[in-house]
Amino acid sequence: MIVNAPSHALPAGMPDAPGGRVIGQAHYFPLRVYYEDTDLSGVVYHANYLSYFERARSDLLRVLGVDQRAAIEAGEGAYAVADLSIRYVSPARLDDQVVVRTRIDALGAASANMCQMAFRNDDLLAAAKVRVGFVTPEGRPRRQPAAWRAAFDAFLAGGDLPIPSFDREA
Amino acid sequence: MIVNAPSHALPAGMPDAPGGRVIGQAHYFPLRVYYEDTDLSGVVYHANYLSYFERARSDLLRVLGVDQRAAIEAGEGAYAVADLSIRYVSPARLDDQVVVRTRIDALGAASANMCQMAFRNDDLLAAAKVRVGFVTPEGRPRRQPAAWRAAFDAFLAGGDLPIPSFDREA
Amino acid sequence: MIVNAPSHALPAGMPDAPGGRVIGQAHYFPLRVYYEDTDLSGVVYHANYLSYFERARSDLLRVLGVDQRAAIEAGEGAYAVADLSIRYVSPARLDDQVVVRTRIDALGAASANMCQMAFRNDDLLAAAKVRVGFVTPEGRPRRQPAAWRAAFDAFLAGGDLPIPSFDREA
Amino acid sequence: MIVNAPSHALPAGMPDAPGGRVIGQAHYFPLRVYYEDTDLSGVVYHANYLSYFERARSDLLRVLGVDQRAAIEAGEGAYAVADLSIRYVSPARLDDQVVVRTRIDALGAASANMCQMAFRNDDLLAAAKVRVGFVTPEGRPRRQPAAWRAAFDAFLAGGDLPIPSFDREA
Repeated sequence: MIVNAPSHALPAGMPDAPGGRVIGQAHYFPLRVYYEDTDLSGVVYHANYLSYFERARSDLLRVLGVDQRAAIEAGEGAYAVADLSIRYVSPARLDDQVVVRTRIDALGAASANMCQMAFRNDDLLAAAKVRVGFVTPEGRPRRQPAAWRAAFDAFLAGGDLPIPSFDREA
Repeated sequence: MIVNAPSHALPAGMPDAPGGRVIGQAHYFPLRVYYEDTDLSGVVYHANYLSYFERARSDLLRVLGVDQRAAIEAGEGAYAVADLSIRYVSPARLDDQVVVRTRIDALGAASANMCQMAFRNDDLLAAAKVRVGFVTPEGRPRRQPAAWRAAFDAFLAGGDLPIPSFDREA
Repeated sequence: MIVNAPSHALPAGMPDAPGGRVIGQAHYFPLRVYYEDTDLSGVVYHANYLSYFERARSDLLRVLGVDQRAAIEAGEGAYAVADLSIRYVSPARLDDQVVVRTRIDALGAASANMCQMAFRNDDLLAAAKVRVGFVTPEGRPRRQPAAWRAAFDAFLAGGDLPIPSFDREA
Repeated sequence: MIVNAPSHALPAGMPDAPGGRVIGQAHYFPLRVYYEDTDLSGVVYHANYLSYFERARSDLLRVLGVDQRAAIEAGEGAYAVADLSIRYVSPARLDDQVVVRTRIDALGAASANMCQMAFRNDDLLAAAKVRVGFVTPEGRPRRQPAAWRAAFDAFLAGGDLPIPSFDREA
């Protein structure tokens, strides 16, 4: 029923995939609420904020020039959430634009404590404390790679970041 | 543990939520693959392409100036997927940028047939035929609102679209 | 391509949908890990434990004879998670059998504090403190219905539960 | 905030994880609809039926004595969905008991065509044709393992199945 794919050259002018931005010592990640995010109560299902926060953390790594997929494929390891506390303040609804703000509270050899908040305009929707640990593919704690540590240090310092390609404002 | 939220004015310069673009008679919607999208086989879980396609259809409505949330909240109704066929061609992985192209094959009084394809660059990942029907909150078929029909007609004509605010290229 | 459905009488002997059991003052809810629950790291995606815990809370209501769907459809309201803390101890993998144990730590007029833990056999996988509040469809706090309160009181007392149909052991 | 886990021996009498049953030449898999499955329209989100069907296929393998996790961990491979068509007939709602019936229409060296239907009592909710292919960890087609083929052949024959431990009725 679906024909074999002919050649599929996409036209010029493709829109960019979503991405966040570092401003000061915080990372801001935008997203939009879709059907899949809501439940029968009409608002975003509570567990999905954890996914929103994960997207933001992954985007922060990407913005900092850290290639987590390469680290995973090389068998080095990845971040895993060790513990997390979240408070739900106000619900988000279909089509809402949400911005996730991520700050690093503390950076250890093998872990990082982050504060993440989701906003719709200036309204706080949810706030979380998240502790992530770097773990081997077998799940054992491991010091995070030096390049990751350096990237986070630069982020914390608010100084020059490893990759010059992203937008940054005072 | 999480303190009461102080004032949370976000700084200027927030990045835009992701959004698609109409080029010719097709809509292109960008997204990125996150942890939540993958499964233990290392690639995007097959059901999630249906969510990707749904995001693209919602974004198409948004770009066309149709406010589906208002229609839902007013009790008018919404689109529901009536049937769908999908062929999986190539897997997507963490951090991949994916673009969903949506075309309308046929437009009826109460339904629309769409062809949706997901690409990574020029590689086809998955292709689907989707038939959506407009239904009342009780799930009964209903003619789509006149404004929706007009928006789709304009999209199909490749002509001027109802809202002037979005980017459009020949 | 899919023909119209003929008559579909299911045979006798259908297996029961999954359900939990109250033993003492705790509720035990079994589940199995499927592809959809895992991510590329090969283990259950961290946000999905929140869904596991939600299933267990819904099942507890069901076992206690509380019809939350009727309450929602009647516009009375529903429980919403107000805040939640979770610690991840050990990962779960595909096909694992997981049991969620739910205990009520404190019961208020409009809220309840619960302790929920996920186990694989006797191994703790994750532990959470969850505070749920009863809210109106508009999201405002409301006293929980008297029947709900009575059911929870009976559960806390370890005494006779509203419905006699479920298995219960000392 | 969450204390270190003390010993956690679960009591006797744990309920069984959900599982399906083979009756004749079909497999019946029960499940229940939870919050996470619904969207703001109040019914099960359309993509989630694909997950329901995947759970049923995984359970069929389990019932047939095939250990797909072992095959994945040994690097042999796994089934992947190649294409799928689904028709949505009637919506499912919170707390509904759903049974997924799975039949094998055709069995090839490296693939299988299945017909899967979801019911609530005798009401058809959704019907799908699914083609799955056995693929290596790199995603290349591979003949399915002999033991898998034998298990499916036995299922198709309606004869003695590899493992004697599951319930079976004429």
